[in-house]
Amino acid sequence: MTVRLPFDDLVALLAAIFRNGGCRAAVADILAQNMAAAERDGARSHGVFRVAGYLGSLASGWVDGKVEPIVEDVAPGFIRVDGRNGFALPALAAARNQLIAKARTNGIALLAIRNSHHFSALWPDVEPFARDGLVAIEMVNSMASVVPHGGNRKLYGTNPLGFAAPRLAGDPLVFDQASSAIANGDVQIAAREGHDLPPGYGVDRDGAPTTDPKAVLNGGALLPFGGYKGSSIAMMMEIMAAALAGGNFSFEVDFSQHPGAATPHSAQTIIVIDPNMGAKGDFAARIEVLVSELHAAGQDRLPGDRRYANRREAMALGVPLSEDELAYLKKLAGPS
Amino acid sequence: MTVRLPFDDLVALLAAIFRNGGCRAAVADILAQNMAAAERDGARSHGVFRVAGYLGSLASGWVDGKVEPIVEDVAPGFIRVDGRNGFALPALAAARNQLIAKARTNGIALLAIRNSHHFSALWPDVEPFARDGLVAIEMVNSMASVVPHGGNRKLYGTNPLGFAAPRLAGDPLVFDQASSAIANGDVQIAAREGHDLPPGYGVDRDGAPTTDPKAVLNGGALLPFGGYKGSSIAMMMEIMAAALAGGNFSFEVDFSQHPGAATPHSAQTIIVIDPNMGAKGDFAARIEVLVSELHAAGQDRLPGDRRYANRREAMALGVPLSEDELAYLKKLAGPS
Repeated sequence: MTVRLPFDDLVALLAAIFRNGGCRAAVADILAQNMAAAERDGARSHGVFRVAGYLGSLASGWVDGKVEPIVEDVAPGFIRVDGRNGFALPALAAARNQLIAKARTNGIALLAIRNSHHFSALWPDVEPFARDGLVAIEMVNSMASVVPHGGNRKLYGTNPLGFAAPRLAGDPLVFDQASSAIANGDVQIAAREGHDLPPGYGVDRDGAPTTDPKAVLNGGALLPFGGYKGSSIAMMMEIMAAALAGGNFSFEVDFSQHPGAATPHSAQTIIVIDPNMGAKGDFAARIEVLVSELHAAGQDRLPGDRRYANRREAMALGVPLSEDELAYLKKLAGPS
Repeated sequence: MTVRLPFDDLVALLAAIFRNGGCRAAVADILAQNMAAAERDGARSHGVFRVAGYLGSLASGWVDGKVEPIVEDVAPGFIRVDGRNGFALPALAAARNQLIAKARTNGIALLAIRNSHHFSALWPDVEPFARDGLVAIEMVNSMASVVPHGGNRKLYGTNPLGFAAPRLAGDPLVFDQASSAIANGDVQIAAREGHDLPPGYGVDRDGAPTTDPKAVLNGGALLPFGGYKGSSIAMMMEIMAAALAGGNFSFEVDFSQHPGAATPHSAQTIIVIDPNMGAKGDFAARIEVLVSELHAAGQDRLPGDRRYANRREAMALGVPLSEDELAYLKKLAGPS
């Protein structure tokens, strides 16, 4: 049975849960907004499904929910943030205004975040930059779960790439895609719901191809999307996130001392560009031309379209949750 | 029968050909260095194979081999170049030193080139930045030859992505990959040599899957690599190159008035980053850690390895060419 919860009520419920889990209020609010937005937009694998992972990581001491990130202004176009073993979202929030100011002054600016835990989707990170008229590219590494093309054991994370560009007349053009053939969260959901994976998405613990999500999760690994080209994209994410920001490579993340932890101790880099410095000053209008042509070529659904449609419905009718999910959240939040 | 020509002799031969084709001397030298490097490194689809395409484009008036590009210093981290309907390589050369200086001062800088013709590989553009200790990301659009995922007619170019990062102890880690499942040049070579394409690489003029390279070239189209994710990468290239720089989208390139022309009238963007501004100041050493781990995970060949091996052999023994190719080049170069 599905119930509909107003978006703000879901945010409040999740914020209470994260405060109970050991986050300071500002961190709890940021995590709650992010997770509620994912659930609202139908991005279930980054929605309330992840509550247990956040709480397990907090309870084990793997991540610090109270710490304040340190923002370092390194150069006119370069900001570093030391997340101090906190979540990535408050680290980004701490540097966001300065990053935008640098992009507007210099044309382009880069934010490199280390010592953080990125456990959320990338589109909520990049979409707001596009709403401010900027282009954003985000690169994140995670924890080893992907076998490089031609290799025999996992080394890369699912290493997502996020991209957002403003449009003149519509919601920003945004994509957020793992460089694995499938996201870890979607494998977990398939395992929980008993669905097979498509062929070519994963291998079992012996490196043999499998369509069983449990075999992938139980010592197996994912494959990159698109063969060697997707593998190169995954490599670029390791370099641009971990090596550039000064964080762990995905294969260096070690959970062994923290049972129950789930968030990758990784790094991320966001590049923000002011596209109005381009030659014609008509960037957002040009994106409309591209979108029109994509529709004319038969691509009915653009990246992000489904999220925006889900968002509109959820803001009008409430965010859909199962009764069981809502009861679980209320129990974790405690008496209100 | 294969002959071996010293690299510098090949450069001189090609420079003479491009001067004969209507290029000023500096442009002819830049094009010759680039094409000879591609042939030397075994990247044959961007080697002397392309001479006819360059000459056809010059002869038709489609591209101007004599023009001087205009460099515009827009912001501390943002350079624009108006290629003035010339080739892309001299446009990059005109801005390269300033781009490096801006990246070193600001941490990151962007070069957007419009009104240019990028007809070469991307790795020769980005590798030199890595040899200077910098990270480079290049995004180029071209001419419509790729059907977007879920679409029914070609719209994207092969839209390559180039990436280069310095290593402490080895040649830079470089990749250069089309966002199509195969490069146009490789389809042309397959057609010329009578090889089939692998399945999933192209469609014929009716949009039906085909493995016949001639059917792809004769009104057909390519497919993106990696399904919808590769299609998103292709879209990002259109946005980051054409829309940002103020150039043509791939579907806006119109050869109809210039029979014999082959070079795409497109745009490109290069982002250059000083990785020593990262937290630990050990970027190039960290790339060595990643490379070691990739080898340990069984990926014997890294992107670029084959090119570097070919390069070493060609610099020692000469660049391999067929006798027919050499005779063709000598005829085009005229009496020396």
